[in-house]
Amino acid sequence: MSVNPQSTPSAVTVLGLGPMGRALAGAFLAAGVRTTVWNRTPGREGDLTERGAVTAASAAEAVAASPLTVICMVNYDATDAVLRQDAVETALKGRTLVNLSADTPGRARDTGAWAGEHGIHYLDGAIMTPAGTIGTPQAVFLFSGPSETYGEHRAVLDGLGGTHTHLGEEVSRAAAFDIALLDIFWTSMAGFVHALALADAEGITPRELAPFAKGIAQILPPLFDEFAGDVEDGTYSGAINPLTSGVSTMAHVVHAAEDHAIDSGVMRAVEGLARRTVALGHGADGFSRIAEVLRRR
Amino acid sequence: MSVNPQSTPSAVTVLGLGPMGRALAGAFLAAGVRTTVWNRTPGREGDLTERGAVTAASAAEAVAASPLTVICMVNYDATDAVLRQDAVETALKGRTLVNLSADTPGRARDTGAWAGEHGIHYLDGAIMTPAGTIGTPQAVFLFSGPSETYGEHRAVLDGLGGTHTHLGEEVSRAAAFDIALLDIFWTSMAGFVHALALADAEGITPRELAPFAKGIAQILPPLFDEFAGDVEDGTYSGAINPLTSGVSTMAHVVHAAEDHAIDSGVMRAVEGLARRTVALGHGADGFSRIAEVLRRR
Ligand SMILES: NC(=O)c1ccc[n+]([C@@H]2O[C@H](COP(=O)([O-])OP(=O)(O)OC[C@H]3O[C@@H](n4cnc5c(N)ncnc54)[C@H](OP(=O)(O)O)[C@@H]3O)[C@@H](O)[C@H]2O)c1
Ligand SMILES: NC(=O)c1ccc[n+]([C@@H]2O[C@H](COP(=O)([O-])OP(=O)(O)OC[C@H]3O[C@@H](n4cnc5c(N)ncnc54)[C@H](OP(=O)(O)O)[C@@H]3O)[C@@H](O)[C@H]2O)c1
Repeated sequence: MSVNPQSTPSAVTVLGLGPMGRALAGAFLAAGVRTTVWNRTPGREGDLTERGAVTAASAAEAVAASPLTVICMVNYDATDAVLRQDAVETALKGRTLVNLSADTPGRARDTGAWAGEHGIHYLDGAIMTPAGTIGTPQAVFLFSGPSETYGEHRAVLDGLGGTHTHLGEEVSRAAAFDIALLDIFWTSMAGFVHALALADAEGITPRELAPFAKGIAQILPPLFDEFAGDVEDGTYSGAINPLTSGVSTMAHVVHAAEDHAIDSGVMRAVEGLARRTVALGHGADGFSRIAEVLRRR
Repeated sequence: MSVNPQSTPSAVTVLGLGPMGRALAGAFLAAGVRTTVWNRTPGREGDLTERGAVTAASAAEAVAASPLTVICMVNYDATDAVLRQDAVETALKGRTLVNLSADTPGRARDTGAWAGEHGIHYLDGAIMTPAGTIGTPQAVFLFSGPSETYGEHRAVLDGLGGTHTHLGEEVSRAAAFDIALLDIFWTSMAGFVHALALADAEGITPRELAPFAKGIAQILPPLFDEFAGDVEDGTYSGAINPLTSGVSTMAHVVHAAEDHAIDSGVMRAVEGLARRTVALGHGADGFSRIAEVLRRR
């Protein structure tokens, strides 16, 4: 514990009041943290004001109100537009900024460098769960950047609830995990909405499909472990489910969907990857071999 | 319960001894069912013979040995090649055939019609879990076709373990659920292997990513319920996570992966669908709106 009063802040500023920024500010308020908010478009506070949030007139004024600022906007073009102004840079000097907006590892590194140039303590972060989970045990947050900075602000950040993981000093690490996890998330969700369209064409309602779809989600975790082991160890066993068997069922999905005139570009791309992997001589291997084929350069 | 001795068969024939056929035959043996097996390529019995399985010399001989035949091959081209021969059709007459191979609803209907023409009691089915789950509580089986036939053979089929659902009399229904669920399965797995490749390029090992990937799998079930409700009710609220916010993160995944020269055709197709949906004026809606756009004709 440091004797610097800024090391135990009881105040936070939240920049950005989209669904996620509002959820973050609401959780800080619920945790008893004095919360100042600002958003580019005024009037997005919802019930935050009546719950005790103070609205600042400008981003610079908002930043000056707290030792810790959390920014959460659509991407880093948006956060750059707000942060890279003289008044804001001056106000942030010596304070801590945590960027919970999603973007690429490259943008996180770039923002870390900018923060360093301006004497700003900087943590990059990512939120892996929907806005509705914030303030609950289901929330999942990733952070990266200096351990000391993370340690100083941990108590306040814990007010956001859920699980917090500090992934290391390298500032881009949270973004790297974030994009890999978003990759899984959006691809899975695309599979689900396509399945809903296909099921509908076959006379199956969304609510009839959902319980079985949840069953598929349940078989993923052990397969993720198995495939991760395969790829890390260079084993790609298809003894249980060879790629040649899998591509056949991928083709069924594409054919059945296209018979109903449903765009199947996503599943076609999946089948294409699998067929390319078979063509490279890996038909007796498992699906995990595709990770290795994708990595080849 | 019928008085017909065939209604409580204690014998089953398994045609096809790939990883799944072997698992099915093994589970029947473990359940104490007299099991006859046959496979196109001889010598694929593994340890089934020492566990008590009888190997038939031909598919027709195999079918004649039991009141119930379960066939599990790569697809219906394979099962047609075995089943649509005079000797096999004759042997199957009056008996029950359960096809647990994966294929399209159209192929299931076609096989149901063929069975009807030859006086064969027919059930179509699908296996929703990996071969390793067969005989355990984790196994998931779907069936469709005449309830009476299902009722007669239920006791023996229960020997396969896990959860069995009879989806109705319409013979194609199991295949329709199967392709919709395989759609989710393969798309999600493709997202995972792509994420492994992307993570690797960012210095994250497969085993480091896996626990977080499992966290993503855990947030899917409630979202599947929510999206199913959205699509069934025609609500597509983006209040919590608008499509405009989502497409921005999809683009990050594509850019970051392509910066590492990783083929991102699957994620590009996902982003394309989302952007098409935004272009149609649905940017403030949630991702579930895509299901409706896919269905449009
Ligand atoms: N919503 C979720 O469930 C969820 C889950 C995990 C992660 N995230 C991430 O959290 C971040 C925020 O998401 P969100 O749900 O709140 O919605 P969003 O639509 O991604 O972001 C909206 C916010 O960005 C601001 N913004 C956009 N362009 C701007 C600019 N040029 N200058 C200043 N502000 C700008 C908006 O201000 P205006 O109001 O002025 O437009 C608003 O405050 C995103 O990176 C998202 O990926 C969200
Ligand atoms: N493995 C799993 O974890 C899993 C999970 C769920 C569902 N399934 C489904 O179960 C079915 C069987 O899968 P599997 O894992 O056992 O492996 P598979 O590679 O899909 O099927 C192999 C079986 O098909 C036979 N076969 C292929 N072409 C044939 C033909 N023209 N004539 C006769 N037999 C032919 C093979 O005989 P030969 O030995 O003579 O080649 C072998 O018995 C597939 O539809 C698959 O989608 C499998």
